[in-house]
Amino acid sequence: MLDKFFYPKTIAVIGASNKKEKIGWQIINNLKKGQFKGKVFPVNLKEQIIEDLQVYKSVADIPSVIDLAVISIPSFGVLEEVKNCAKHNIKNIIIISAGFSEIGIEGKRMEREIIKIAQTNNINILGPNCLGLISSHASLNASFAACNIKKGNIAFISQSGAIGSAILDWTVDKDFSFSYFISLGNKAVLDENDFFEYLKNDNKTELVAAYLEEIKDGQAFMKSVSGLAKTKPVIILKSGQSQLGREAAMSHTGSLAGSEKAILTGLKRSGCIIIDNLEELFSLLTLLQVKTEYIGTNLSIVSNAGGPIVVTLDQLSKKNIALDKFNKKTFEKLTKTLPELVKIKNPLDILGDADASRYNKALDIILKDEDIRNILVLLTPQTSTQIEETARVLGQLNKKYKNKLITASFLGGHSLVNAKNILAENNIAHFNFPVQAIEALAKIVDYKKRRKELEEYKLIKQKKVIISQKRQLDYLESFKLLEKFNINVTGITRIENKDNFLFLDYPIVLKAVGPNLIHKTEQSSIYLNIQNKEQAIEAYKNLAVLLKNKENYCVAQEMITSGQELILGFKRDDSFGPIIMLGMGGIYTEIFNDISLEVDDVNYKRALKMIESLKVNAIISGARGRDKLNKQELAKAVVKIAKLARQHPEIKELDINPLFLDKSGVKAADIRIIV
Amino acid sequence: MLDKFFYPKTIAVIGASNKKEKIGWQIINNLKKGQFKGKVFPVNLKEQIIEDLQVYKSVADIPSVIDLAVISIPSFGVLEEVKNCAKHNIKNIIIISAGFSEIGIEGKRMEREIIKIAQTNNINILGPNCLGLISSHASLNASFAACNIKKGNIAFISQSGAIGSAILDWTVDKDFSFSYFISLGNKAVLDENDFFEYLKNDNKTELVAAYLEEIKDGQAFMKSVSGLAKTKPVIILKSGQSQLGREAAMSHTGSLAGSEKAILTGLKRSGCIIIDNLEELFSLLTLLQVKTEYIGTNLSIVSNAGGPIVVTLDQLSKKNIALDKFNKKTFEKLTKTLPELVKIKNPLDILGDADASRYNKALDIILKDEDIRNILVLLTPQTSTQIEETARVLGQLNKKYKNKLITASFLGGHSLVNAKNILAENNIAHFNFPVQAIEALAKIVDYKKRRKELEEYKLIKQKKVIISQKRQLDYLESFKLLEKFNINVTGITRIENKDNFLFLDYPIVLKAVGPNLIHKTEQSSIYLNIQNKEQAIEAYKNLAVLLKNKENYCVAQEMITSGQELILGFKRDDSFGPIIMLGMGGIYTEIFNDISLEVDDVNYKRALKMIESLKVNAIISGARGRDKLNKQELAKAVVKIAKLARQHPEIKELDINPLFLDKSGVKAADIRIIV
Repeated sequence: MLDKFFYPKTIAVIGASNKKEKIGWQIINNLKKGQFKGKVFPVNLKEQIIEDLQVYKSVADIPSVIDLAVISIPSFGVLEEVKNCAKHNIKNIIIISAGFSEIGIEGKRMEREIIKIAQTNNINILGPNCLGLISSHASLNASFAACNIKKGNIAFISQSGAIGSAILDWTVDKDFSFSYFISLGNKAVLDENDFFEYLKNDNKTELVAAYLEEIKDGQAFMKSVSGLAKTKPVIILKSGQSQLGREAAMSHTGSLAGSEKAILTGLKRSGCIIIDNLEELFSLLTLLQVKTEYIGTNLSIVSNAGGPIVVTLDQLSKKNIALDKFNKKTFEKLTKTLPELVKIKNPLDILGDADASRYNKALDIILKDEDIRNILVLLTPQTSTQIEETARVLGQLNKKYKNKLITASFLGGHSLVNAKNILAENNIAHFNFPVQAIEALAKIVDYKKRRKELEEYKLIKQKKVIISQKRQLDYLESFKLLEKFNINVTGITRIENKDNFLFLDYPIVLKAVGPNLIHKTEQSSIYLNIQNKEQAIEAYKNLAVLLKNKENYCVAQEMITSGQELILGFKRDDSFGPIIMLGMGGIYTEIFNDISLEVDDVNYKRALKMIESLKVNAIISGARGRDKLNKQELAKAVVKIAKLARQHPEIKELDINPLFLDKSGVKAADIRIIV
Repeated sequence: MLDKFFYPKTIAVIGASNKKEKIGWQIINNLKKGQFKGKVFPVNLKEQIIEDLQVYKSVADIPSVIDLAVISIPSFGVLEEVKNCAKHNIKNIIIISAGFSEIGIEGKRMEREIIKIAQTNNINILGPNCLGLISSHASLNASFAACNIKKGNIAFISQSGAIGSAILDWTVDKDFSFSYFISLGNKAVLDENDFFEYLKNDNKTELVAAYLEEIKDGQAFMKSVSGLAKTKPVIILKSGQSQLGREAAMSHTGSLAGSEKAILTGLKRSGCIIIDNLEELFSLLTLLQVKTEYIGTNLSIVSNAGGPIVVTLDQLSKKNIALDKFNKKTFEKLTKTLPELVKIKNPLDILGDADASRYNKALDIILKDEDIRNILVLLTPQTSTQIEETARVLGQLNKKYKNKLITASFLGGHSLVNAKNILAENNIAHFNFPVQAIEALAKIVDYKKRRKELEEYKLIKQKKVIISQKRQLDYLESFKLLEKFNINVTGITRIENKDNFLFLDYPIVLKAVGPNLIHKTEQSSIYLNIQNKEQAIEAYKNLAVLLKNKENYCVAQEMITSGQELILGFKRDDSFGPIIMLGMGGIYTEIFNDISLEVDDVNYKRALKMIESLKVNAIISGARGRDKLNKQELAKAVVKIAKLARQHPEIKELDINPLFLDKSGVKAADIRIIV
């Protein structure tokens, strides 16, 4: 429970100082400037008074229960202070101090010690190596970031202190603010998931945004975020997705978890709004000053010029956002009100000589239309344009139509400065370029669509199986495992000698299998389409070289000649668990990279969606007059593999390739399991 | 020749006025404010003096040769004035007045009349319906856009007056400026191509940027831009690429040319830097304050925090921009100079407590390294950050290292305002987000790579063949045409009766062909893989229904059983001419959309690039131990088809599908030609 963490009544600042260049002074000062209503107890060995507050030599001396301790002293002393806090029953600590796991072995050791104490005593610790915490509704700035506390509804979580500072700095001029600002630091004890869990039931927060460089426990992440995103938008900027970025993040955060694909699959599963860079983050925060509920799926546009409309429509098209259609009433009112030369349609070009009053009339009519939810106002500075007055008009309309999304993109520079301030003061999302508005809107529309179907990811506690060396599971055993999970496999017979070829149904495939063999057409471990005993004996001879190795043996399998070749399997990710993969098989797998991924709780419905997201789905669905293949059975097979992955934590990788799909269902023809 | 257009000595302003709300006054005022050195002659029936200048009743009264006339009177009077100008031998006219083709039939008629006079008298006309012209090195603002003329090296051409205004407005605060600013308007006489041609040899211009909504003559565009882009970067924002955008552009510009794919193919061929939206335009203009020659392909990064580095590297990775490696000397100097905790590598994190002096030291060492050309400076406002001082440091370094690209991205808002001004004053490209810097840099790096291989598009004058009705060319004739251009075709025999089946080499394909038949596997007009006479007769019977129609007849073709199915052909675009298409054939054509496009001057080298850009190239190149197919012969076939397209302007569309490719070469198995 983090209630006292966010809403403490008493705070001890260990390392408080009278020296203004010290972080220990900045924290005291920020608490004071933020007009924190609770009691603050500075702790310092030498000082008597700091900023009019009585100073204590140790937390032990403080004559009060302490809800939260903030520690800002050199790293080597921190462990001792954490122990002191534990002794005095302090359950919430923020460690500002740096010099822990991010700097090397000794730092890691100290951090581990701190974690131990926290676990034993059930203490919440934020940091170390962080900016601290701002909890605006508690008038609490327990950080060393200077900032005016404005009560808001956005919870912002940052793994990077610097990016956190940049965000705080950016909000100063804007008229929106945070419920909580949390700088995670090294995440020794509390990590993003603890905060996501807390925010789920926090009525002060309507929007959550996080900048993360590493998601250590992806499965817990999926659980908490999917629960949270069901009720409020969660924006995640996960940096370090590229190899280059990952390496930099590693040297910077000291650790690394999750493969690129697994992270992306997990983020999707979590139901969050995935963003790619800081610009998108700022755009979304700008747009989401309006409640998500009010935002519709379509857009109306009003502009004083055609050019910007054309540019905007190109973006709209790219992002698949539809235009509203004006209903008859709106159409008639606009026709009656606007100059004759104006063509009444959406997007509405109210012409180059439009003054603020014409903007007002047109917008007022459109906003009255109940079916219209989102409006984008474009403006270019022309001879008769009343730039600031138009901005004021938007402000008035924004007050009048509280349940609509009014966004603006005024194009230009110099002459717009005041207008932009007016828009910001009036809480209107302004974008320097229409493309930013469209991209942000598209992200929200997409989120709103996905949210309906979002289910909470259920965490299944599995013991982590740590194996010293990876090995390939025996081929016949692998087939048995598939059969145990009711996945159809081709008929398979172990060949001990030539006589075995007498009793087979031809055509067959002959393979040499073993712990180090793989079966690809260009290898000589496999012979396809053997029609009779003679051909089989010939192929068997060719396999002899491989079969000399006692670890290997020979199998005959039914030859499948029709159906679509697919690939189905999973790979276990350290952070996000098993990542289920389905795709086009055979030679085209690598060429077209036609692959769909899911996490291990994939169900029938989502498995169908996986299939439908593949290009090969056109063939499965019966392209160009072909037979439809059995999509339902394929979806079931996907779910079975996911179940297998959950029940067999010792399996690292599993690949069925090819998996044949025809009208009747699937059949696994080759399998490779790594344990 | 546009010399007198850009550098007139005498200007007549027809419709000059003393009323300040009139465009005719604004033009006179702008000419005056811009300190135009030549003579200005206001023309107005009623006034005597305008802004201290003597007024003439008509151009006829002006006692001087007039180099340029600017017309700003109501549209119905314009034609008469153009006639007057023609009579008095004025060869350059700007028509500011609106009310022509953009408003309907009567406007179109007037515009056509004006065009006729211009053609007869060899007059250059800019507009109508435009903002006018700014020619900074002539101190000439012959537009009604208020703007301080700063002499610059960027020529900006805009089809939209509003977007032109926005751009002008945006540059006011920035320290860069235009050589020419040209508002195209309706492009009645002069269009973008005329200006591209002029700018090719204009030594005042080092960079050309254009916003276009329609490219009417795509082939002329490719000719002039490819010539221009060979020597200076040409940035093109072609809006209206989406269907939605196209419709809006049409209702706005009054016409429409070129299909979406043709436009994109043509833009690529032109060698320009293609951009997608206004934000990219602003980013590129920001970055290209530095000469293209100085910009390298790699990047070095210096930052005071790790988070922004991680975010930037993700973008760098996405855009395939490599990081510089510090050489030994640079490495050693940095090690000696920077605090011990700094890890010396690129990107260089000089830590959160970096002051301006540390930035200076690090950057100075790196910029001295001759192999390093581009540097991106990241900054987040932290406790010890000297924001403005660091901006000043960058300004000094920019003066010291004139031949390097120094860009900056300071992250935050409020506290950066002054620093951003300092950067602008010092000509340093600043981006609010690193992603913008990276995307702009990537565009330039890509342009520089492409420029080396760019050849000028040679316009071939063809008579336009206008055909009342499209029809399909006879099948056997189509085959003959391919053979005429030395493209291998499968053996083909016309079947008149059953006896013909005696003398064929089996297997064969049997088809019914005719003006309205197409040959797809799911149609009953084609029978594949016929092994003998009996099967052939059977298939022939099945075709009987189709053959009843006298227009249809039956052919037998050699059945090809191996090789890769491809599709090769072209489609003639009204604006850009024949667009040559090569792609994966058969059932996968539509599923994977694996298609590469080129224009009609494609040569062997570029044809090879087309092949290599396809995914099916992996198969052609011998994926997974398969045979390599004959890429060279395929490339030759592409060139042959392009030649055919140029020599047969009557052909609208041609499709060879499938074209089989094997080790020895290509063979066309089916062809469809639309004339």
